[in-house]
Amino acid sequence: VAVPQQQRRGGTRSGRAFQVRAESAEVATTSAPINPSIKKDSDKVVDTVLAGELSKPLTAYCRCWRSGTFPLCDGSHVKHNKATGDNVGPLLLKK
Amino acid sequence: VAVPQQQRRGGTRSGRAFQVRAESAEVATTSAPINPSIKKDSDKVVDTVLAGELSKPLTAYCRCWRSGTFPLCDGSHVKHNKATGDNVGPLLLKK
Ligand code: FES
Ligand code: FES
Repeated sequence: VAVPQQQRRGGTRSGRAFQVRAESAEVATTSAPINPSIKKDSDKVVDTVLAGELSKPLTAYCRCWRSGTFPLCDGSHVKHNKATGDNVGPLLLKK
Repeated sequence: VAVPQQQRRGGTRSGRAFQVRAESAEVATTSAPINPSIKKDSDKVVDTVLAGELSKPLTAYCRCWRSGTFPLCDGSHVKHNKATGDNVGPLLLKK
């Protein structure tokens, strides 16, 4: 069953126990790093893309921090989502 | 001390104990969801940007899954990095 995002986030409907539990799990997740291995010698990993220099009609950029070709997406989000129940995916850049 | 990425990732230099421990922590992180609250009713959150329609000279896109203006970056990665010791940041798109 699809639960509207606002219900998942807020405390406006606390009547349903499973929602309260889901909220707790989410808060716990927030306190852990999400990047296990990419450029850990860098204080902040920021990448810059020049829109005018895109080579392909469609380029996928990683947002799961598990790609072997970071900052590009190599499909590793699929394994991450399956292993953790997460729902992350890339940012697609269209020329 | 900045540790080269390859040493952090690989098992080629296991002589130093702190590196082995760091590696273990990284593996543990991989088994948790990284998106606490964005569109959790969606199986996979994918966003598409048309490079030709960028309005500003520079646009920052979120890769920390904590932005209140996702898929745009609102600076929330700063709080996340401080709270967790992480080093994530946005993807910058230059017109
Ligand atoms: S590999 Fe990270 S989003 Fe696809
Ligand atoms: S708010 Fe997520 S990367 Fe900036």
